[in-house]
Amino acid sequence: MKCNYKIVLAYDGSRYDGWQKQGNTDNTIQGKLEAVIGRMLGEAVEVCGSGRTDAGVHALAQTANFHGETSMTEGEIKDYLNRYLPEDIGILSVEKISPRFHSRLSACEKTYLYQIETGKKANVFERKYVYCLGKTLDLERMRRGAALLLGERDFKSFCSNKRMKKSTIRNLISISIEEKGSKVLIRYRGNGFLYNMVRILTGTLIEIGLGDRKAEDVIRILEKKDRAAAGPTAPAQGLFLEKVEYKGKDS
Amino acid sequence: MKCNYKIVLAYDGSRYDGWQKQGNTDNTIQGKLEAVIGRMLGEAVEVCGSGRTDAGVHALAQTANFHGETSMTEGEIKDYLNRYLPEDIGILSVEKISPRFHSRLSACEKTYLYQIETGKKANVFERKYVYCLGKTLDLERMRRGAALLLGERDFKSFCSNKRMKKSTIRNLISISIEEKGSKVLIRYRGNGFLYNMVRILTGTLIEIGLGDRKAEDVIRILEKKDRAAAGPTAPAQGLFLEKVEYKGKDS
Repeated sequence: MKCNYKIVLAYDGSRYDGWQKQGNTDNTIQGKLEAVIGRMLGEAVEVCGSGRTDAGVHALAQTANFHGETSMTEGEIKDYLNRYLPEDIGILSVEKISPRFHSRLSACEKTYLYQIETGKKANVFERKYVYCLGKTLDLERMRRGAALLLGERDFKSFCSNKRMKKSTIRNLISISIEEKGSKVLIRYRGNGFLYNMVRILTGTLIEIGLGDRKAEDVIRILEKKDRAAAGPTAPAQGLFLEKVEYKGKDS
Repeated sequence: MKCNYKIVLAYDGSRYDGWQKQGNTDNTIQGKLEAVIGRMLGEAVEVCGSGRTDAGVHALAQTANFHGETSMTEGEIKDYLNRYLPEDIGILSVEKISPRFHSRLSACEKTYLYQIETGKKANVFERKYVYCLGKTLDLERMRRGAALLLGERDFKSFCSNKRMKKSTIRNLISISIEEKGSKVLIRYRGNGFLYNMVRILTGTLIEIGLGDRKAEDVIRILEKKDRAAAGPTAPAQGLFLEKVEYKGKDS
């Protein structure tokens, strides 16, 4: 009988074309997983992720699930996948879960982390995991701007997908901005995020932190419902999908 | 007038052929530094390091020095070097120092760090900076073996250079072995280290930790004064030059 398996995984997105599987020249996280899991099961499989991550974006704990029949235990599946997946994709856990669990539809909250280096050069060991801005940020200004973004709002101005036909309303639960040495870490928690939303929010908060924009500008940006009103899309390499949360019996 | 500049730098050694400059196909840390500093000064320069690091070995704080004449301040030199050096070499500090300071000859103590992953797969973000052993180590056994290595001794058995004509006596001041999650970190502090010494010490301590060798074996290994008596050379990628210390007015 087929079971539903929930997997939690980390990846260094640097050399991948993002999460979502593409055509023939596949170099995606989903593609790598489906190839290895398909080999393990002896049949083609679809691996469903909690959401796509863009090319170059990392994950500390992405969640995915797949249905398959195997005599292997959860621990054996984890070991098999870690052995055959590349070094930059690591399986943190595998567990059998309710057949109804769907990593995307069941997700209720996600947390993203964005890392900015304010020094002139990033720590050599972290260079692929921060956006090296090289300038000082006024965190109080950024926090004032961030506070105005919270709650259930239409984030159309913070979405790169121009042909987005579904709702662009999301609930942004919290934004925390903290210093760690010469880095600034921004954590976004919400019930869902639009295409490029975290990176555009970050680009806009950086403009506020640099003094190029007022904190109160975000009110006008939200009202415009136009991508052009917001700041630039911050680079992918500073972004991590940190956590995906599920509630109740489907988690 | 020429001044003597002390520089402290970090590097990710993954893609380099080690510290020491080589012939025509130079891909070394020293070679990269000499090229950029030479361009800055407008003349060829020799950059002297506190010691060589092997191909693939990293540095958290290597120390080097060079003599040169420039109107630039120490801060300007630091910024220039960080701008023109590759992303995986970072200058942490630049300071004018006594003309007598010599990064190798004036060094009195060095600390090396070796990182071992005991889990089956390394954290994806640390994969280039640990040796993934994938087996559990008995740290108490390793500590007993380490204690027998301390002090001023002839470490000839722990040196890869067969044609070593100079003294192979070194003072190994301390070895600390600690757990950090699923990693084991070994720190070696001494007045100097022979070619591959830290990696051979580590390979030997790992054999002890795996139960393949007794802790007391190290006494016999030291007595033999033969490289073949010791354990294997642990991989370069887990090794970091962590600190170089200087005393008194030359530091």
